[in-house]
Amino acid sequence: MAVIGAGDFIGSAIARKFAAEGFTVFAGRRDGEKLAPLTDLARAAGNTIMGRSLDARKEEDVIRFLQEADAHAPLEGCIFNIGANVNYPLLETTERVFRKVWEMACYAGFLAGRESARLMLPRGQGFLFFTGATASLRGGSGFAAFASAKSGLRAAAQSMARELWPKNIHVAHLIIDAGVDTAWVRQRIVQREGEDALNNLDPNRLMRPDAVAEAYWQLYQQPRDAWSFEHEIRPFGEKW
Amino acid sequence: MAVIGAGDFIGSAIARKFAAEGFTVFAGRRDGEKLAPLTDLARAAGNTIMGRSLDARKEEDVIRFLQEADAHAPLEGCIFNIGANVNYPLLETTERVFRKVWEMACYAGFLAGRESARLMLPRGQGFLFFTGATASLRGGSGFAAFASAKSGLRAAAQSMARELWPKNIHVAHLIIDAGVDTAWVRQRIVQREGEDALNNLDPNRLMRPDAVAEAYWQLYQQPRDAWSFEHEIRPFGEKW
Amino acid sequence: MAVIGAGDFIGSAIARKFAAEGFTVFAGRRDGEKLAPLTDLARAAGNTIMGRSLDARKEEDVIRFLQEADAHAPLEGCIFNIGANVNYPLLETTERVFRKVWEMACYAGFLAGRESARLMLPRGQGFLFFTGATASLRGGSGFAAFASAKSGLRAAAQSMARELWPKNIHVAHLIIDAGVDTAWVRQRIVQREGEDALNNLDPNRLMRPDAVAEAYWQLYQQPRDAWSFEHEIRPFGEKW
Amino acid sequence: MAVIGAGDFIGSAIARKFAAEGFTVFAGRRDGEKLAPLTDLARAAGNTIMGRSLDARKEEDVIRFLQEADAHAPLEGCIFNIGANVNYPLLETTERVFRKVWEMACYAGFLAGRESARLMLPRGQGFLFFTGATASLRGGSGFAAFASAKSGLRAAAQSMARELWPKNIHVAHLIIDAGVDTAWVRQRIVQREGEDALNNLDPNRLMRPDAVAEAYWQLYQQPRDAWSFEHEIRPFGEKW
Repeated sequence: MAVIGAGDFIGSAIARKFAAEGFTVFAGRRDGEKLAPLTDLARAAGNTIMGRSLDARKEEDVIRFLQEADAHAPLEGCIFNIGANVNYPLLETTERVFRKVWEMACYAGFLAGRESARLMLPRGQGFLFFTGATASLRGGSGFAAFASAKSGLRAAAQSMARELWPKNIHVAHLIIDAGVDTAWVRQRIVQREGEDALNNLDPNRLMRPDAVAEAYWQLYQQPRDAWSFEHEIRPFGEKW
Repeated sequence: MAVIGAGDFIGSAIARKFAAEGFTVFAGRRDGEKLAPLTDLARAAGNTIMGRSLDARKEEDVIRFLQEADAHAPLEGCIFNIGANVNYPLLETTERVFRKVWEMACYAGFLAGRESARLMLPRGQGFLFFTGATASLRGGSGFAAFASAKSGLRAAAQSMARELWPKNIHVAHLIIDAGVDTAWVRQRIVQREGEDALNNLDPNRLMRPDAVAEAYWQLYQQPRDAWSFEHEIRPFGEKW
Repeated sequence: MAVIGAGDFIGSAIARKFAAEGFTVFAGRRDGEKLAPLTDLARAAGNTIMGRSLDARKEEDVIRFLQEADAHAPLEGCIFNIGANVNYPLLETTERVFRKVWEMACYAGFLAGRESARLMLPRGQGFLFFTGATASLRGGSGFAAFASAKSGLRAAAQSMARELWPKNIHVAHLIIDAGVDTAWVRQRIVQREGEDALNNLDPNRLMRPDAVAEAYWQLYQQPRDAWSFEHEIRPFGEKW
Repeated sequence: MAVIGAGDFIGSAIARKFAAEGFTVFAGRRDGEKLAPLTDLARAAGNTIMGRSLDARKEEDVIRFLQEADAHAPLEGCIFNIGANVNYPLLETTERVFRKVWEMACYAGFLAGRESARLMLPRGQGFLFFTGATASLRGGSGFAAFASAKSGLRAAAQSMARELWPKNIHVAHLIIDAGVDTAWVRQRIVQREGEDALNNLDPNRLMRPDAVAEAYWQLYQQPRDAWSFEHEIRPFGEKW
């Protein structure tokens, strides 16, 4: 199976989980060299994660990446996990930002979904999961670019679900309605709340990347007479 | 744990699943004698399901039922599963129907939730799950009574979630967006589509009661940094 | 046309607006004597508002009230405007509160809708509007009773819309996603924020009751090829 | 005020309505020469509609168009009305289609909104309305491109609303949940249902473009203590 957007936190946790469960995992991210620790750890544990550089905004790259994955192990599924969270006041949101965020968070997801489907449909089964966020459902102030892209991804995923479910391909959209414990989120906490905020961080505030991987694993395990499309998760202490 | 609304299909499947996983299950339904096969089967399998008659629309009954459950095994959770699916044109929806459907599908759920919370809060943990339906989100033609009651249950559950999650009680609402394979649903298919409809029934059309039980078990297993409130399931071939 | 729940603020504003536009308005509230100023003012302005005592939770009362209205002027529409906003922690929400709030905010609305439809259907036209609130869409902490009732009303209204629109009866649900400038809301502001809060009240914070009446008038004016069911309004400065 | 996407049907109806109410209307569409009949008719009626060619997917064009409009009459509002309704099976949705539909229906709307805001903010008032569709809320089968773009537009509009409302700029999103009576919709009906379908067309099936213009006019007239963001309209006989 493929993980597109295999960053250090959520994407890596997903790859590790599916590899630990026996999948041959094909992981892609912009700078593929950064995947070395992940693939090494997997190998040490007797699992298989293969890493590749991938610019998921380029159709040819996506096609080649998925075909290569499929050559190693017939593609059973794809998890698209590229984010692009930015916040700018409307007047400071450049057309370049708006377009880039869309290319990363929405357009790339469309390409990943379409090309995965192309490989899985002839075999009559598969899964296609997309990582969403609070902004998938809500356009907050300052989030014109990010919310637009994430909402666009969600709608594309929903269209895919309505077309592909009857062909036995489970399309789902996971809404992470919370901050996940990543370096980037910790940075933002420091920026907003000061250096001490991390020292005093409520241990229940952030979601572990492994919990996201668990959620995807639950989706994978659902019997086909009880599939979810939208699946929302948040920590027990989160305000919503 | 308690199952309120332990009918022959969904409720029984839930009770069996949680009993098989090691829970002491306390199952209630209007006519408790009908629970004998369920409790007998569990006993034969080395599991524990205790059955009781319960009119969940009566506050005192609900209190007594849950207290008795709690006396057998400190209450770890409660699943509320009473339905009341009816369809009448608006002008033929009597005030009695509107009230009864609400009492069964909404008011009883409020009582079950409040009283379960009362028992679980002092112990600082627990779960509280509610069975929803398509009508929890959509008021279809002819469903003024049923959709109103189910939407009212959903909103009450959401209020409970916002209050109880931070106290480590997982409140969730499972939306079954499909027909489940029950005697009642099969009857309706015959009524609408004729006797042959059952013989030619697409084996993928209806959801198995066991699949509903699996969905509840997935909810129960979620780590508390990644809980779902709303959880939707439907068969892969369902139109939505 | 009938206004059920003609309180001093929103309901009165609705009655005044429709009377000013030429309707014969039949206004009901629990204590009908409190309607005297409203009916007097209308008379002085050359308009017609008739006031009656009405316990809208009693089927017979609702039937009699609407028939009497219909006798004065064939019923063209009904606006249901009874609220019952309460907030209690779950464990302190008595079964009596849960039931009463539902009877006032949901059950009474069902009765008003069904009986108005019974009178309007033979004439092939009419309107049926329901006042909703933020809690119609969201079960906030402490709002198990109120959100449940308002969500139940919304779902019933939606079912009515799907059944009655094709028969040329415009059913709509107005979501007031804000505080309206009423004595009760001002009291709550004082309770929460202190006496000074009213003196320093941002003039843009609360919605005028007349603005609610305007919203209903807009709904009434919609051509039938472009009806709204859900209609949301909030002040420009409101957080949402 | 500006109308971006002033096609022969909805956009023209909006321009006519606002011109008839006294606005100086600046109308843009891809091929500006097609606007001649619209501007001529307005002139004959003593109203002002100025037409321009505009490729709304080009930032510079949008900036120049709005500045020119602003020079003729200080910009009071902008209505963005570009659609791009296409339906393709997933595997036949080319990356070019996906990108073009997004550029027309979403990216252009972002540009129009941002640049209109830039002109209106210094004056402390204005309106910014966006035309949505059923696909703004629902990703149907075959609509990956269209639903993704429309959902993305809606989210961007919502972000703008949360940022601009407090600055007295009314941002709203009109969901047309129906077919509008345009040449293109009539063509599709013929394609799907045969030639006779138009002859036997239920006169209540399609929404008049003028009804859409009326809906926008209602939005414009809302007092600022009771603004709508989302505004849905559909014909009384529509299934939903």
